[in-house]
Amino acid sequence: MNRGVDTIVVQATALTAAAFEPFGDVIETTGHRPRPINEGTCLRYDDLAQVDVLEHGGRPLISLFEAAPRPLPLPIRSLERHPLSSQAFYPLDGRPFLIVVAEDGPPPWAGRIRAFLSSGAQGVNYRRNTWHHPLIAIGAASRFLVVDRGDADGNCEQTSVDDAVVLATTG
Amino acid sequence: MNRGVDTIVVQATALTAAAFEPFGDVIETTGHRPRPINEGTCLRYDDLAQVDVLEHGGRPLISLFEAAPRPLPLPIRSLERHPLSSQAFYPLDGRPFLIVVAEDGPPPWAGRIRAFLSSGAQGVNYRRNTWHHPLIAIGAASRFLVVDRGDADGNCEQTSVDDAVVLATTG
Repeated sequence: MNRGVDTIVVQATALTAAAFEPFGDVIETTGHRPRPINEGTCLRYDDLAQVDVLEHGGRPLISLFEAAPRPLPLPIRSLERHPLSSQAFYPLDGRPFLIVVAEDGPPPWAGRIRAFLSSGAQGVNYRRNTWHHPLIAIGAASRFLVVDRGDADGNCEQTSVDDAVVLATTG
Repeated sequence: MNRGVDTIVVQATALTAAAFEPFGDVIETTGHRPRPINEGTCLRYDDLAQVDVLEHGGRPLISLFEAAPRPLPLPIRSLERHPLSSQAFYPLDGRPFLIVVAEDGPPPWAGRIRAFLSSGAQGVNYRRNTWHHPLIAIGAASRFLVVDRGDADGNCEQTSVDDAVVLATTG
């Protein structure tokens, strides 16, 4: 990694639905009005993500991920996207995690890379074709529930990020 | 509620894939072989539940539930089932919760009602048409991620349980 003068440091900002809108959904209760169910013993925050996995006969998968924490600062060397499906991640240990996404376009990537910090009570759902970095747990091993279409052929594109971009600690 | 001599007490047993098989899937890492992804930084336990939500143009929903704890012993007065879809629940606070299900058939229900205790690192996916009790959080308010088809017309049947059945504390 080039840690020279040209290194571009991306700082994460708090994950909000408004800031993440170009990339997908934030799965959270904040900003959503629940409805009471089960004789008032439960609040349902309904339909928080656009699950888009049915293209070409796809079906929704529920999977569990166990992610090792990444050291920070983290070089951003590649991104991936799924042309056939959305992909949702929700943290199961209440731990914050980092989300790196980029708007599509020709190189250089640096100016288009954005980073967000989940509170630990927020998941994300990447919209189909959103460039994103593989899962970035921080601090400790973290579990996630994932709803996607699986890794079927043709559903994962990868691109290298040749710019010297590092994801920094937040704040 | 009839708390007389005829009251039938259902004790919960530990949730296992084998015991729950007639009713649906246990969403857990136990018993599943993961595959490494993301350059070995993550383990993926893939496709842990049969998400069955597409009947009659249905689509998968991701929702969050906040459930108040139920007092125990809990009278089991009604059950519900979804004829058009599966319904998956995964606990987000690592807290154990109770699952009450029943095999289909004519009354009386008592002999067919089963109760299971999730470890807090186990979710369940009710198979389509599995009779189940609404969500039973215990001990403290608990959050769940839910994957289902929503409450579309015709997708929720309810039945009363006239037998005096109570769900007891475990152990």
